[in-house]
Amino acid sequence: MAERITKRADDYAQWYLDVVLQAQLADYAPVKGCMIIRPNGYAIWENIQKALDGMFKDTGHVNAYFPLFIPESFMMKEKEHVEGFSPECAVVTHGGGKKLEENLYVRPTSETIIWSMYKKWIHSYRDLPILINQWANVVRWEMRTRLFLRTTEFLWQEGHTAHATYEEAEQEALKILEIYRHFAEDYMAIPVFHGKKTESEKFAGALHTYCIEAMMQDKKALQAGTSHNLGQNFAKAFEVQFQDEKSDLQYVWATSWGVSTRLVGALIMAHSDDNGLVLPPKLAPTQVVIVPIFKDVDEKTQTVEAAQKLKAALSAESVRVHIDDRDQYRPGWKFNEWELKGIPVRVEIGPKDLAAGNVVCARRDKPDRSEKVTMAMGGAASGIVKLLADIQKNLYDRAKLFRDANIFDVENYDRLKELMEKEEGFARCFWAGSSEDEARIKDETKATIRCIPVDQSGTEGVCIFTGKKTTTQVLFAKAY
Amino acid sequence: MAERITKRADDYAQWYLDVVLQAQLADYAPVKGCMIIRPNGYAIWENIQKALDGMFKDTGHVNAYFPLFIPESFMMKEKEHVEGFSPECAVVTHGGGKKLEENLYVRPTSETIIWSMYKKWIHSYRDLPILINQWANVVRWEMRTRLFLRTTEFLWQEGHTAHATYEEAEQEALKILEIYRHFAEDYMAIPVFHGKKTESEKFAGALHTYCIEAMMQDKKALQAGTSHNLGQNFAKAFEVQFQDEKSDLQYVWATSWGVSTRLVGALIMAHSDDNGLVLPPKLAPTQVVIVPIFKDVDEKTQTVEAAQKLKAALSAESVRVHIDDRDQYRPGWKFNEWELKGIPVRVEIGPKDLAAGNVVCARRDKPDRSEKVTMAMGGAASGIVKLLADIQKNLYDRAKLFRDANIFDVENYDRLKELMEKEEGFARCFWAGSSEDEARIKDETKATIRCIPVDQSGTEGVCIFTGKKTTTQVLFAKAY
Repeated sequence: MAERITKRADDYAQWYLDVVLQAQLADYAPVKGCMIIRPNGYAIWENIQKALDGMFKDTGHVNAYFPLFIPESFMMKEKEHVEGFSPECAVVTHGGGKKLEENLYVRPTSETIIWSMYKKWIHSYRDLPILINQWANVVRWEMRTRLFLRTTEFLWQEGHTAHATYEEAEQEALKILEIYRHFAEDYMAIPVFHGKKTESEKFAGALHTYCIEAMMQDKKALQAGTSHNLGQNFAKAFEVQFQDEKSDLQYVWATSWGVSTRLVGALIMAHSDDNGLVLPPKLAPTQVVIVPIFKDVDEKTQTVEAAQKLKAALSAESVRVHIDDRDQYRPGWKFNEWELKGIPVRVEIGPKDLAAGNVVCARRDKPDRSEKVTMAMGGAASGIVKLLADIQKNLYDRAKLFRDANIFDVENYDRLKELMEKEEGFARCFWAGSSEDEARIKDETKATIRCIPVDQSGTEGVCIFTGKKTTTQVLFAKAY
Repeated sequence: MAERITKRADDYAQWYLDVVLQAQLADYAPVKGCMIIRPNGYAIWENIQKALDGMFKDTGHVNAYFPLFIPESFMMKEKEHVEGFSPECAVVTHGGGKKLEENLYVRPTSETIIWSMYKKWIHSYRDLPILINQWANVVRWEMRTRLFLRTTEFLWQEGHTAHATYEEAEQEALKILEIYRHFAEDYMAIPVFHGKKTESEKFAGALHTYCIEAMMQDKKALQAGTSHNLGQNFAKAFEVQFQDEKSDLQYVWATSWGVSTRLVGALIMAHSDDNGLVLPPKLAPTQVVIVPIFKDVDEKTQTVEAAQKLKAALSAESVRVHIDDRDQYRPGWKFNEWELKGIPVRVEIGPKDLAAGNVVCARRDKPDRSEKVTMAMGGAASGIVKLLADIQKNLYDRAKLFRDANIFDVENYDRLKELMEKEEGFARCFWAGSSEDEARIKDETKATIRCIPVDQSGTEGVCIFTGKKTTTQVLFAKAY
């Protein structure tokens, strides 16, 4: 608490690390590039898991668990996949005190091990679809890491589905994209663009990749989730065929999709401020902290009793509440601490409030004193429930206003370069270029096409790079 | 379904594998010793996790996540620990295409990596206790593996707590032991002995180890959970000291404790029968399957409608229900399938039942036709809720009767040898021997001391091996 958080305006990257470390969300591990997710951070991830897991199950998915280790030969079977992932892998060469006959890769993603099993499980159209998800750790050897956003080991969910037709696989990939969009906007309070990746940005081994892209407070893009239509690539690599209703042999169609602990980083970056973490109420492990204010034992007894009553009333409304009745810290110190830790609502109950039959509520999203709300004790529980909903909405609206104010329609390449140089936001423009063109733009501006949004204007325009006429608009941005 | 399950009496080990594979709980992985936990098996693990996680949180524990990789040098810091685990480890020697400067061990358990962080986080008595749990995968290179019971990679939870005093650590270890005992008996419906391990059976690096031990249907013991008082061993190895209230420097006291996916194996072995899986209702992913019985579309409409009404009534009571209205299978086939998969209650609704205003319930724990229960449609939901509770109780009672009938008070070593040779059960006897004596008995009989039960008779007797007088009784058994 004695430490100060760097201001966003001074050094955004350092501000982010200060928030992560001081709010005790994560810490650096002794192994380079790895992190420890501390209880405050892990509780956010648990809430993310719970919400998403429910959505997956509601749409017919089931969970399973596949091994951490993938034989080297499996990784080699899908050409693009091995080129994409092999250089990033951690390799086990020894086990049980002996050199292994075949090296094992620590999974960077599980397509290969899963499709080797689907070969065993899928024979007939009656075995389809398979709608499996797994929650797991994966390892990708990263050179430049940043807590939550890019770490050598991270936690994620990876869905791997098998279908009888292209159309079904495509529908599944889009259904999941919609779940991700809904989750980002409704739970994380982060507006996202959902769309398709270009050929050069798609997943190694996919037919095409869909994604959600968010804007952080430094106006950079963060890819928050991807959903891939894998076509028949993995089925062909692993020889997975099924008998269709006419008894003809067909290769199986596949999707895979995932979000990771990177979402915790997105959450922090999207909403937090110079006082510390700001969390949307739906994902905040503690939604309300009640701070009884007292100078002596009598006052403590009275205010804590009132706090407990309010806690009971809030718990009955499924609100997650903590009472901070510690003696060794002063109220002001406590206020700062809970602000740093991002608790959406702080309730103060002092002897004067009690005498007046009131409680005072401070909103984390509006830390100004003038924004404090006084509520009658009797209506406080329902008032706070409404306040939480309002905070959730305000965070989303604020993030959307910010994002929309920082998207610029760009009509030529010079303007794109200027925008990216000044780090002013996202560029929306018409695009008819090639992968080579994208590579050149990336070289020159560090910006990439984040996605081809699903929502297109439908009008025709001129590609900023090739000058060709096109109706396709894309979003360029620098990205995490 | 066409396959047959080996009978327990013919080949217990094969029976177990038949149940695991045919009920699609798990499958063999392409990597030796690893397994795939299939959706039917994983759903059981999810229920185990949910129940235990709630108990941990109710007792003040929080979840976190520590890295998969442990630097080789860390493993070497606690002498007994490295001797115990080093030979079992998988070793990463290459990452990102390069040979690593220091080898990384894939965690076999996380004491070392966690205590390296506790050194950073613990300075004062105010930082204590730390009550952290993590749900994770671990790897121990096993020579002889068996699905769920002993696999190279498995899933588990590992608690790692830090305390100011020996007494607090001891209390914590015992509190967790009690949670494990309660969970085994009340949720898994498996009676267990809870007690202390002897010196030669304790965890590598522990002061002492507590455990719960269950008897399987082949009368062998299965260790179902362990809780260790680690003393100051890891604090000393990692130099973790705190300032106490008098400002004196003290080493921190530690516990660790865990249960794993082995519990799924225990659950299968304890209750299942020659028709397949039997699950206690509290942990069964699906508790009730309703099978509408119909010969034509009209009958289907009527019976499925009744099934849906009953499902709604049961769901309102938080019962997990599935309706099997598939056209392509006959009722008898469906009955067999749901029996194989261990659904506790099967409800049959045919046109005749419907006309009589009844449903017919079959209990999975009593598969005889004569045990079917007919209930009036109106009272079926509450009747089935009671039935589920009764099945839960019956499974426990049955397992306890079986266990108690197969524990023998043994007064001399010859009788112990005879008992173990005939694989007749557990031997309870007085014990005052040494670790060397235990080793010799293990050599000669393959039996080990499973635990020194907490519940002792208090009487004095003669040690079966040394002839010394003692009040300590132990349990010997062959174990998984």
